[in-house]
This record gives sequence, C-alpha cells and structure tokens, in this order.
Amino acid sequence: MNIEKKIKELAVQVKAASRVLAGTPTLEKNSALRAMAAGLRQRRGFLQEQNQLDLAQGRAAGLSAAMLDRLTLSDKVIEAMATGLEEVAAFPDPVGEVERMWRRPNQLLVGKMRIPLGVVGMIYESRPNVTADAAGLCLKSGNGVILRGGSEAFHSNMAVLEVLHEALATTSIPASVIQVVPFVERQAITCMLQCEAEIDLIIPRGGEGLIRFVVENSRIPVIKHYKGVCHVFVDAGAEIEMARNIVINAKTQRPGVCNAAETILVHKDIAASFLPLMVDDLKARQVEIRACARTQALCSGLVPADEADWATEYIDLIVSVRVVDDFDAAIAHIAEYGSDHTETIVTSDYHRAQEFLRRVNSSVVMVNASTRFSDGGELGLGAEIGISTTRLHAYGPMGLEGLTTTKYIIYGDGQIRE
Amino acid sequence: MNIEKKIKELAVQVKAASRVLAGTPTLEKNSALRAMAAGLRQRRGFLQEQNQLDLAQGRAAGLSAAMLDRLTLSDKVIEAMATGLEEVAAFPDPVGEVERMWRRPNQLLVGKMRIPLGVVGMIYESRPNVTADAAGLCLKSGNGVILRGGSEAFHSNMAVLEVLHEALATTSIPASVIQVVPFVERQAITCMLQCEAEIDLIIPRGGEGLIRFVVENSRIPVIKHYKGVCHVFVDAGAEIEMARNIVINAKTQRPGVCNAAETILVHKDIAASFLPLMVDDLKARQVEIRACARTQALCSGLVPADEADWATEYIDLIVSVRVVDDFDAAIAHIAEYGSDHTETIVTSDYHRAQEFLRRVNSSVVMVNASTRFSDGGELGLGAEIGISTTRLHAYGPMGLEGLTTTKYIIYGDGQIRE
Repeated sequence: MNIEKKIKELAVQVKAASRVLAGTPTLEKNSALRAMAAGLRQRRGFLQEQNQLDLAQGRAAGLSAAMLDRLTLSDKVIEAMATGLEEVAAFPDPVGEVERMWRRPNQLLVGKMRIPLGVVGMIYESRPNVTADAAGLCLKSGNGVILRGGSEAFHSNMAVLEVLHEALATTSIPASVIQVVPFVERQAITCMLQCEAEIDLIIPRGGEGLIRFVVENSRIPVIKHYKGVCHVFVDAGAEIEMARNIVINAKTQRPGVCNAAETILVHKDIAASFLPLMVDDLKARQVEIRACARTQALCSGLVPADEADWATEYIDLIVSVRVVDDFDAAIAHIAEYGSDHTETIVTSDYHRAQEFLRRVNSSVVMVNASTRFSDGGELGLGAEIGISTTRLHAYGPMGLEGLTTTKYIIYGDGQIRE
Repeated sequence: MNIEKKIKELAVQVKAASRVLAGTPTLEKNSALRAMAAGLRQRRGFLQEQNQLDLAQGRAAGLSAAMLDRLTLSDKVIEAMATGLEEVAAFPDPVGEVERMWRRPNQLLVGKMRIPLGVVGMIYESRPNVTADAAGLCLKSGNGVILRGGSEAFHSNMAVLEVLHEALATTSIPASVIQVVPFVERQAITCMLQCEAEIDLIIPRGGEGLIRFVVENSRIPVIKHYKGVCHVFVDAGAEIEMARNIVINAKTQRPGVCNAAETILVHKDIAASFLPLMVDDLKARQVEIRACARTQALCSGLVPADEADWATEYIDLIVSVRVVDDFDAAIAHIAEYGSDHTETIVTSDYHRAQEFLRRVNSSVVMVNASTRFSDGGELGLGAEIGISTTRLHAYGPMGLEGLTTTKYIIYGDGQIRE
C-alpha cells in the first residue's frame, strides 16, 4: 500500500478518535490505563514471541550488545511498562483544571481551563517500552498519538499496539486514539511530518541526527532537545564534601543520559583545595578527565581539553574540567558552550545562589543539587514524555501538563461591550 | 546593500541586545517605556512629517480612504501610542515571577520562573501604531523585537523607530533591542523567517494571505490566527432581551474585527419568539442576513445562506443565521465550521452552560457575554500582542505572559540522586 496515503489515513483516524477522547471523563481514562496494564501482563508470552523476531533480526544485522539489551522485552521491562501505565492512571488529570479565575470590573468571571493539544506524533528509536509509556501519557492527557518507533523494534511495537487496542476495546474510548506507523521506511517519518491538519505536535526522541532530520522536514511544531551539555559550577567557598558528592553523582550515577554533567567549572579560589580530591574521586570511578591548563597544573596526568571539548556531550565516563576566574566567567562559559539543558551551582553564598538562578536561563537551573534531578519524575511532574531545550510551548522536562494547553472560559450575565 | 545579509546582521544585533534586556530590572524597563512615550509626544512634528510621505505615496497609489485613515499618524493616534506605552509600564512584569514552589520528598524545593522568550519577529500590515505597541510589549517582557511593517507605512515606521531609539539612548538598555526592517521588498520577510538561530517566535498580523505566506516559509515557530468565525448560540429558554443585546453587540459594535460574530445559531424551540425580533434589530442596523430555510420561513425577505456562508468571516455588516435542532447540533456546527476563535452561548440553563464551556474547545468560550470581550485588554491581560487559534505555546489572546516561558529552578542542600 502507498505509504503516504496510509499515514494520512491513520492520522485522520487518530484525529477523529482524539475528539472523543478529549471529552472522556478521567475515571474512564484511568480504567482504560489499568486495562492496558493488565493486558501487557496477560499477553507477556505474545509480546516476547514477537520481540524475539526483532532480536533475531538485530543479531543478524550485527547490533551491539547494548542495543540488543535496549531492544529486549524482558519480564522486568514488561512489568515496568505495566506499572508505568498504572502510575499514570494515579496522576491527577490536567484536563479541565482551572488554576484560578479572576473577576473583571464589569463582573465577567474569567479563567483558563486546560484542554488537550489534539494529536501528538512521537518519533523515537529502539526501546519498545516507549510505545506503551508515550501511549499512556497521551491517553491520560486526552491526546491521540501516532507512534513511529525504530525499524529494529517493528514487531515489538506492533505487538504492544495490538495488546493496547485489545484493552481499549473493553472501554468506551475508540482504539484508534493510539496508532503505530506500520512501515519501517524513513519515508513514513516524512509523511507524518506533512500531516499538519491532523497532528498538532511532534516529539522526536533519539540522537541529534534524528532530531535535526525531523526539525528540517516538519511543517508541524516540534518539541526538540538536541543535546545536554550540563554544567556543575563549584563556587569559591562551596562545601568541599557537598561539591565532591554532587560532581560524582552528576557525572557517574548514570553517564549515558542527557542530564549527566559534562563540564565541571571550578572557581580559582577553591581550585587548589578541591580539584585534587575531585580528580581522585573521578579517577577511582574510571572517568577520563579533559582538563584546562590550570587544572593540569594542579593535578598531574590529565588529558588536555581542547575548544571542542567544552561543547561536547560525551554521554560516557568522560568529563571536561575548567578553572574560571570568578562567578561571571562561569556564567559566560555556560552561555557560550551550554545547550540550555541543566546547570547547577555548588555554593554557600546566598547572593550568588540567587544570582545564578536569575541569570542562567537554561531549562533547569539548580543550587546545591545534582544535575541528575532534571527529570520529570524527580521534579514531581509524574512521568515525562520528553524534554525541551527550546522555549516555545514547553521548556525543560515535559509531563502531562506540557501535553495540554489552556482555553479562556468566561462566565457572564449578559455583558456587552460598550 | 544585500537584503539577506542586512537582515541577518540586524537579527544578530537584536539577539545580543536581548541578552542584556533579559537581565534588566523592571524599574529600568519601566523608565525606558516612559521615556519612549515622552519621545513620541515631543517628536510629534517629525513623526507627522514622515507620515505625510507615506500618505502622499498612498494617495498616489490609489489606496482607499479606509486604508489611508489607518495609515494616518494623527495627534490622537500618537497620543494613544504614548499612553499605550505608559500603560505597559504600569503592568506587572511577568519576568522573574514564580507562581508556586513545591517541596519534593528529598526536600528539594522546585518552582518555575518566568523568563523572556528571546527575540520576537513581528510582521504586520499598514497601521504604524503597531510599531510602538509591539515594541513596548516586547521590551516589558524582556524580549528583543524585529518589526517588519507594511511597505506603505515605511517612512512612518522608520520615524517611530528613530524616536524610540533616541529614548533608549537615555537608558542602560541597548537601543538595538528594537529594530525595524529597513526594506520594503517582500524578500525581507523570507529572510527574517530563515533566522532561526536569532529569532525565537514569529507573530504575523494581517490578512489570511500574509499569514499563510509566513507559515509556509518559516523555519521559526509562528503564532497564527487565520480568521475569526465566531458564533453566538441562542439556547432554548434564553432570556430574549439578553440574547438580543448580545447578538447586536457581537455583530455590530465593531464589525470589522476578528471577535465580531459571523454566525448566529438559534435553538428551534426559541426560534419563533426570538428570530423576528433579532432580524428587526439587525435590519435596523443595516446588517445583511444570510439565513437557513427555517429562518427564512419565520422571517421574510432574507438572503438564503449557502454552505460557504457558514465558514465565512465577513468582517462586515453581514451575518449568517441558522436554526438548529438542539444543543448537540449547535456544538457540531461550531466544530465543523468554526475557526477555534471565540464562541458564546446565551442560556439560562445551568447544565448546558457548564457543558458548553467543557465541550467547545475554541480559544475563548463564553456564557452570556458578547464575543467582543475576546481581547487581551478586556480579559485583563493588559494589552495584547496577538491572538492564537492554534494550541501550541499560546491559545487565544496573547499578552505579556504569552511572551515569556518558564524555566525550572531548584533550591537544594546537597541532594544527590540515589
């Protein structure tokens, strides 16, 4: 079948179904989420059988062990998908919420009520669990969703869809609020990106190449996040133990994710007392350190950092380290090389803590906490569907609320405009 | 000079200046706004002299009297521009506002702080007063702005810019936070729309043709609003006098604007008692009525409405009228033909009032009030820079808050992630 025509057809179906979902009461949506969770558990055998087809193809295609691991629907992964859906069922429903209302001088009562965006298009890479996670968040927030996972997870994604559709068939929600693009060709993405009458928002998750491809080809607004070059700035007078713990945690607790720290900036007045301890901490954890000249002068045996290091997201056990003259130099470094993702200052100075929060306009700005907290779950948003490092619509971790917008509602008693 | 190069150069200047403005305290921004207002008053002679050049060209080019009127910088218009800037100075500054903070189980204190978007690109048609209005709103919200007005207002817009720059020269804010594109060629718009590294948001204001051109050519997110096909639904049991007043006001108080009503839907149970009165009211005000068959059966001498009428924004003393079977039929009509702008129900029924607010997802939804209140000033947002009928980032009238986004801020005491 013609790919373009089929994608358009799917998008039209999802759009129509999303109108029904937009008016579905919370209790009904929650029942559906729990039915979806139960379905994933009951149909584990079918999911794993389909997943084996992808794994066999992946092995034949020579995928790395790490990639095969991400692709595997183990018992544990399936249970986590089910639990995730139950957690989303337990979150408050943003739809219909009115945060405050205000009275106008003519007695009109005005407020803003949250409503769904409409239809979300998700484009992502190998992990098939994203299929259930994204479907759950979109359903709870009243949005239809069209999912386009990686070609290497094709059978797994179609199997997850089948199970979710079986669950929805037991509810009043039309199954077609959730669809998976049934094509492995890249053309399918291009076709999705042209459906601006049906899809309201595109969320790509994956490498920088995928995201650039989506941004360049989309006629639909894109929530994007190219990379996370996160900074820890250790200020003069910082508590040394606190700074050590935060640096270790931010770099090594999970180095392969976007909120891990990539660059440590150290105030020159604390460099001599702090850096040798930090370097030992990191070396003990097999972290490669790329250092500026001043850091090298204090700690021997480090790799020199070059200009490109300051803008690099290693996503690995590598970190760049730079001594800066003062607070302003740290802010300037972040402005020049940062990616607007997450930055933290370790300080004991009240004024600089407040100034850092005011002057650094990354999507998440912290004082005395690990960059690893830059995550929807950790910030209390419930789960997250993605993260935005551009400022339109959403900025930073994006949860259920980010999947909604607000309309103005007005209660009158016959007011007319003079 | 090469247009593309010059636009890029302007955009880079505005971006750099916007970084300074983002950190400028409210008091300083307010002083600048008042200096801008004073400048417009003092330099009225210069502004009108430059405006005469545009008016002479406009007359020679055969512009209509209405267009020449919109182009004229009369004493009254200049005073309104100055007053507008002073009003913006008096609004609360959204930048730096933290609406609420919440405590996480690990004691992290998390909040969202408002920050400017960066640089706004405004593309608009003839009225030169928009130049000062938009510059004021962007300055207050901490955004740089690049303005591209209509070619017929070229001298007027450049003169307004000169006066605003003179005023900014007396402050610490770099004058280049406000720039006007110094080219009349349409290519200048295309060039602006490619500056995605410098401009964060495009707001076009004008006819549907201009807006479509901008959307199709932009690599930058666009806040858009194609048309306003606003509905008044007169429910069974509505108070007849209230319904008459609201219809008259919504259609005739200012028919040339987007929040004027274009279609009146009338419940069949109230049609016989209400429609003859409404038709007399509108005829007495020279409104042409395009009616469905059932309306024609009740009121003689009306023009029949055809299918195209239901989707038409007349922006004139014309209205379409349709009798509907029930509440659901009214909702379905709005969903099919509406433009997601503004709809109002006139009703005395509690349940249907609440249901209308819940089920109609236009950007502004009202009960018992004229559609003419769908306006930033009337809703209490202060002034408005535009209106959005698409759901991303902003939906409905967009004021100072719509020109900002939020970053997450986090106060910690050394927390690390387990």
